[in-house]
Amino acid sequence: MFRLRLTIAYVGTNFSGWQIQAPGLRTVQGCLEEAFSILCSGKKKEGVANMTPVRIIGAGRTDAGVHALAQAAHVDIPADRVKLPFVKACKGLLPDDISLIGAEIVDRDFHARFKASAKTYSYTLWHEPNFILPQRRPFIFPVGRLDLSAMQKAAELLIGQHDFAAFQNVGTLIKDTVREIFAIEMESLHNQQETIWRITGNGFLKQMVRNIVGCLVQVGRGKLSLEDVRYILISQNRKNAPATAPAAGLCLEEVKY
Amino acid sequence: MFRLRLTIAYVGTNFSGWQIQAPGLRTVQGCLEEAFSILCSGKKKEGVANMTPVRIIGAGRTDAGVHALAQAAHVDIPADRVKLPFVKACKGLLPDDISLIGAEIVDRDFHARFKASAKTYSYTLWHEPNFILPQRRPFIFPVGRLDLSAMQKAAELLIGQHDFAAFQNVGTLIKDTVREIFAIEMESLHNQQETIWRITGNGFLKQMVRNIVGCLVQVGRGKLSLEDVRYILISQNRKNAPATAPAAGLCLEEVKY
Repeated sequence: MFRLRLTIAYVGTNFSGWQIQAPGLRTVQGCLEEAFSILCSGKKKEGVANMTPVRIIGAGRTDAGVHALAQAAHVDIPADRVKLPFVKACKGLLPDDISLIGAEIVDRDFHARFKASAKTYSYTLWHEPNFILPQRRPFIFPVGRLDLSAMQKAAELLIGQHDFAAFQNVGTLIKDTVREIFAIEMESLHNQQETIWRITGNGFLKQMVRNIVGCLVQVGRGKLSLEDVRYILISQNRKNAPATAPAAGLCLEEVKY
Repeated sequence: MFRLRLTIAYVGTNFSGWQIQAPGLRTVQGCLEEAFSILCSGKKKEGVANMTPVRIIGAGRTDAGVHALAQAAHVDIPADRVKLPFVKACKGLLPDDISLIGAEIVDRDFHARFKASAKTYSYTLWHEPNFILPQRRPFIFPVGRLDLSAMQKAAELLIGQHDFAAFQNVGTLIKDTVREIFAIEMESLHNQQETIWRITGNGFLKQMVRNIVGCLVQVGRGKLSLEDVRYILISQNRKNAPATAPAAGLCLEEVKY
């Protein structure tokens, strides 16, 4: 067996997230495993039900509706299949809203999840109050005009190593809620019609990016002060933090190893 | 009555083009006329069948599948409706794939089609041969690696005033096929993963931009020489020019008055 590191892009709108769940739910992992089961067995698509399933391990589980430009994953491939042009071969085996954009042989101890040293997510806010550009609609959270300077100051409070328990949603078994955020950078596009917030950290709790953005948006609306944000963080209590920002604005942009 | 100049953005994928056609076909003009009929009559959406229809005249008819960032149009509005916030009001009356992004009162002799002095279309080519980024798929024509420098030289041959009969598709009554192209500019994105070709002219024949791009792509593939392009243009014969490039790559970016 050889281990491949995969890089995957997808539009999350029509997926129930990355991770395989109940049968019948359409997931990115499910589509990829089906494609790789076909490639690894050499059987035709019709025979997929009878194949040994190939397991694909992602760097992280993106939620339903969340996009990716470069999700990372790994998969083990039989030696006799290793010379396949995987990227090209996946083109016809994946639906239009997923693409395998990279595949390279890595050491057998590479692990997409445990070896990841940093991830960058982008979150895109739409500020034009009167209309939404239809080309951008699947990828943005419409919020109207906000105090961007106050938001940037609030973002700075979150940089560094902190216990982010207040920014973790329920439904996870994770006990250690300390993470480090390396940077939060804002990019303004088209005369501030939209802003992209790029958050890089060593790891993220369940819906942590969307909870951070939900909090920053409330700062931008003048509903929370910098002092409030400091308090929310220190409180380590999810009940003090504002609502989670919607999935559509979020995109996994990079996983570093 | 007051005349409004409208600016409209749309994702063309699920439209049978701009122009109203047979009943049942979904068109941009049809959706806009329905929204404005509601706004001008002040009636609720349910009563739309009984309203006097409002006519909307576009700067040009984009084909099925063609997108727009700033299509222009005009519409006449009763005096008692002219203070409506049209852009905001249209938000709830238009489907997700169209947005009215501008509306301003203009002189009564303004005409979206006849007064247009220049239009800019963009056409986006996707050059990565092994995958298509799903986020870009609805807006590109996948062509693989091309000789971009040869294409730019061929594009220069088309700049200026010419009879573009060889680049006009059938199905139009237009007799005068002389048009002027002011500029063809290429923008390269993400290490030439895609290129955007912006073509500005005083007017365009039926599918002229897509025929020009179809021709440039054949130059980029080495199937046509600069001499061939010169001959196609001079021949004024559509049969000499290559196949029309697909609608998805095309976007109406600007109409100037």
